[in-house]
Amino acid sequence: MTRSLCVRSLATIARMTVPGTADDNLPEQVRAILADYFEARRKEASPIGADFDSALDALQGFVLGGGKRLRPTFAWWGWRGAGGRPDSAEARTVLRAISALELVQAGALVHDDIMDASAVRRGSPTMHIAFAEQHRAEGMRGEPERFGASAALLLGDVALAWADDLFFGAGLPEGAVARALPAWQAMRSEMLAGQYIDVLCQARGDESPDAAMRVNRFKTAAYTVERPLHIGASLAGAGAELIAAYRNYGTEIGIAFQLRDDLLGMFGDPEVTGKPAGDDLREGKRTVLMALGIQLAERAGRRADLTLLRTSLGRPDLDTTTLDAVRTLLVEVGAVRAIEERIEELTHAGLGALRIAPVAEPAAARLAELALTATRRDR
Amino acid sequence: MTRSLCVRSLATIARMTVPGTADDNLPEQVRAILADYFEARRKEASPIGADFDSALDALQGFVLGGGKRLRPTFAWWGWRGAGGRPDSAEARTVLRAISALELVQAGALVHDDIMDASAVRRGSPTMHIAFAEQHRAEGMRGEPERFGASAALLLGDVALAWADDLFFGAGLPEGAVARALPAWQAMRSEMLAGQYIDVLCQARGDESPDAAMRVNRFKTAAYTVERPLHIGASLAGAGAELIAAYRNYGTEIGIAFQLRDDLLGMFGDPEVTGKPAGDDLREGKRTVLMALGIQLAERAGRRADLTLLRTSLGRPDLDTTTLDAVRTLLVEVGAVRAIEERIEELTHAGLGALRIAPVAEPAAARLAELALTATRRDR
Repeated sequence: MTRSLCVRSLATIARMTVPGTADDNLPEQVRAILADYFEARRKEASPIGADFDSALDALQGFVLGGGKRLRPTFAWWGWRGAGGRPDSAEARTVLRAISALELVQAGALVHDDIMDASAVRRGSPTMHIAFAEQHRAEGMRGEPERFGASAALLLGDVALAWADDLFFGAGLPEGAVARALPAWQAMRSEMLAGQYIDVLCQARGDESPDAAMRVNRFKTAAYTVERPLHIGASLAGAGAELIAAYRNYGTEIGIAFQLRDDLLGMFGDPEVTGKPAGDDLREGKRTVLMALGIQLAERAGRRADLTLLRTSLGRPDLDTTTLDAVRTLLVEVGAVRAIEERIEELTHAGLGALRIAPVAEPAAARLAELALTATRRDR
Repeated sequence: MTRSLCVRSLATIARMTVPGTADDNLPEQVRAILADYFEARRKEASPIGADFDSALDALQGFVLGGGKRLRPTFAWWGWRGAGGRPDSAEARTVLRAISALELVQAGALVHDDIMDASAVRRGSPTMHIAFAEQHRAEGMRGEPERFGASAALLLGDVALAWADDLFFGAGLPEGAVARALPAWQAMRSEMLAGQYIDVLCQARGDESPDAAMRVNRFKTAAYTVERPLHIGASLAGAGAELIAAYRNYGTEIGIAFQLRDDLLGMFGDPEVTGKPAGDDLREGKRTVLMALGIQLAERAGRRADLTLLRTSLGRPDLDTTTLDAVRTLLVEVGAVRAIEERIEELTHAGLGALRIAPVAEPAAARLAELALTATRRDR
């Protein structure tokens, strides 16, 4: 089934996408919009002075440098599938509005990195680390870490504020903003709620797969797939049936996407993923994979193995031998197979929701393809 | 001049305000709107679960419990002075939109308290301290301070995100959002920029009155007076002349407001201000008052006094004797008189800008009165 879907979608897309529009080059167009936006906002902020402008430079580099533009991509195809025309005048305003999702993501990542005390993001020092280094390099007063965290907190706020400014100031057609507002506001609340539940579960030492799944549901699925699709669909004035189908697809595929991420974080090839092997484990990330491993080891009465899993989670100096032991164990207790099966089920359910929905081509084919790349990738 | 203005304004207001509207009871109406808004958003977020809802409870308590509603007040009179009718259907939507300013302020304060490591706000533990205490009380894992800071960071983000949702979802009349967007977006950028410059000046040990004044300009004046007025005026479709006058008034009065705050922070009666005497000094707040004191002591070649000022700034264990010595010194070198004179000049200039502008009554009288209460208060 999978292969035939894939082949169909590629053929369909080749036939039906509109060349030269965001159908073909969405990441480049999003980047160009964001570059223009930064230029305009920095010009507007220039009376504030050079110091703030330098700080904005760091934020701009982060926003323009990064990412797969996954959220705008889902929003775009959500809009296309609800009848949006890529060569219309409206398309330009929709592209501007959904580019704002990248600013939300930038703010979320910068703040997340402060909370997790992460040092590296996309191969570069995280924002708070970069500002702490600047503090050291310029021999400023006070603690470098404190300065770094404050600067990053404020720049994350700037990104979040500008996200709203860009979304609401995109020049969308009459009524579109009001239609998309519920999805836009739900997305930001759910993302922040997901992060909060994550922090709380960690503090409570909640090891249950349910807790990890709930974090996935809001922090990843709703925020990355479901609500971007919902926003795109609302902008196009989609009906309740299509929106419900998108949301089902988004939830299933979004969770499967995160489960795949968890597997790659543990078993992925660092040369391909770009992340050091076992980094999630070292950082103490409470993935469904680890939660399930712990649950299964416990049920099987494997007490020594259970201790291994628990003590490895969040151990910064984790060595390769221990990492390998954890990997082997996760396979042995059946956690890996269970996660793979769950990914398969979720992907199947997501594609099913899409298939029976009134999604216009080429979006239906492209969304089916995105479901597969999101859940079966190796990077 | 002052007294006659005051008397005139009170008489005018009694004659021209519309009873039963926000003219009379703005703080209560803003509070009611915010209470309803929290109820609606929490209901919408209920599928996320009880944990997030409890966290929102803390934010709601903070937002509803606090403040003089200064920013909505300036926005309201800005709108009224540009022809807004308090008993119109539009007034209701304008009130909703400007109530969002209190959510911006809540987010700004929560984040500011994290950066300043402040323990108390409005007589209660700050958000990050309250969550750290919860962490301790429930015997959670990890560092309580880390948990507290993460929870407060996320709840500040929620407040900022909801501010935009409320503003843009207030149901404003056609075209009003687009008109007000430049002022709305400038306000948030300037507030964050002001905070960043503040953090940076502190790290650089910049003692100059100029630096402190620049922080006042953006962190207080633009954010508290100038842009709220600008937002109100734009919502009413005001012309360029009125907006320019409001912005001049807002800048002058806003800076004077902060200078008064600085004086009260040093010389205010704790029984009246509700803040411990000398708290600004203990927290190391780089006020224009202190900057000027340092500059004047330096120019006068008073080296021992200079050392006293510098070592007192940011000393948590500052005793009453030293505090009194600093106070006496600030009077002796002429810093207090210079600040009082500056407040007088700024207030005069602000009132002058207002007087020649086409501001409708009773807003003109009320804004003149607000200028005096903001700059001559004792609390």
